[in-house]
Amino acid sequence: MLEFFYTPDTCALASHIALRDAGADFQLRRIDFAAEEQKSEAFLKVNPKARVPALVTPRGVLTETPAILAFVAQSWPEAKLAPLDDPFAFAAMQSFNNYLCSTLHVAHAHSMRGSRWADEPEAIEAMRRKVPQSVAAAYDYVEEALVGPFVMGDAYSVADPYLFTIASWMESDSVDPARFPKTAAHRDMMRTRSTVADALRIEAGG
Amino acid sequence: MLEFFYTPDTCALASHIALRDAGADFQLRRIDFAAEEQKSEAFLKVNPKARVPALVTPRGVLTETPAILAFVAQSWPEAKLAPLDDPFAFAAMQSFNNYLCSTLHVAHAHSMRGSRWADEPEAIEAMRRKVPQSVAAAYDYVEEALVGPFVMGDAYSVADPYLFTIASWMESDSVDPARFPKTAAHRDMMRTRSTVADALRIEAGG
Repeated sequence: MLEFFYTPDTCALASHIALRDAGADFQLRRIDFAAEEQKSEAFLKVNPKARVPALVTPRGVLTETPAILAFVAQSWPEAKLAPLDDPFAFAAMQSFNNYLCSTLHVAHAHSMRGSRWADEPEAIEAMRRKVPQSVAAAYDYVEEALVGPFVMGDAYSVADPYLFTIASWMESDSVDPARFPKTAAHRDMMRTRSTVADALRIEAGG
Repeated sequence: MLEFFYTPDTCALASHIALRDAGADFQLRRIDFAAEEQKSEAFLKVNPKARVPALVTPRGVLTETPAILAFVAQSWPEAKLAPLDDPFAFAAMQSFNNYLCSTLHVAHAHSMRGSRWADEPEAIEAMRRKVPQSVAAAYDYVEEALVGPFVMGDAYSVADPYLFTIASWMESDSVDPARFPKTAAHRDMMRTRSTVADALRIEAGG
């Protein structure tokens, strides 16, 4: 049995949705950031990075959203969550996911996690001020790269729950979804999917 | 024929080495950051992100190091550059590469690229000051995760040229390699490989 460690309102939602898309059998384990449970001795044994998501498998623990998403797609091939037999198309999907992780999510992280990269309160505040601009610049690229209706075109893939998850932070980063109509339409469409609605309901219910 | 766009002293070195490991037939295209060639109209048509690496294939352009590395491993399976038939082991490798990309490289980027995340010179200087600490903290994790002698254990993989590339920046980030003996030994071992030496010589010769 898989165990999936998550916290609501984090990027863990992407992997949570993908596990539901795959029809995987898994136990949800909630980590309470408000209580700093991610720094507890018990959780650091699961993930020494003190972050979510973490997927505990019989072989060991997997972390990092793009890696978990590809693992889910490869482990449940019948769910058709990635172009598994086409290295170019698979790499294009991975490239998109990697951009969300290392550029868009990183830009967003400067709103709440500036202390990772500077100590002075003024510097942390300066980072926070630039978030609407740096996040919007990343969406300029996403809006161009999103083929539609799904990220990679006609076929759903694990890039879709990942973009949906990240894009749900637009308003809190003061980025206007109206500037990015394809991304906004993708978000609306994703909300109508049952696996997305189930994941959101369960995470909200605690 | 593949075209590979790179700039010396960037993370593009990882994909360059992997292409040599694979025995791929490719043309090198050098982008001169000092002349801001990455912002030229010609290069923005290749990669609108204005970054290297970029791998031009007959199907289209691939960007983002972890995605290119996995593409090389999957496209030249006979080179055995990744555990292609084992989704868990493949995901573990991808997780390592993803950490280099989204945490370690991002921490390093605050030394030279702080203007991505703040405008004020004082804030950019504050970011620069924290780099030795934030980069070293990432190496605490890498040192623990590196199985040895190669990143994933006895088998070489595309995680090796990636770690080698990033770890070559330790001194410039004021991180003491002596604090991370496994990572330092990996770096020394990698330098003795002919594909690494060839890539370094060619990039230096420009």
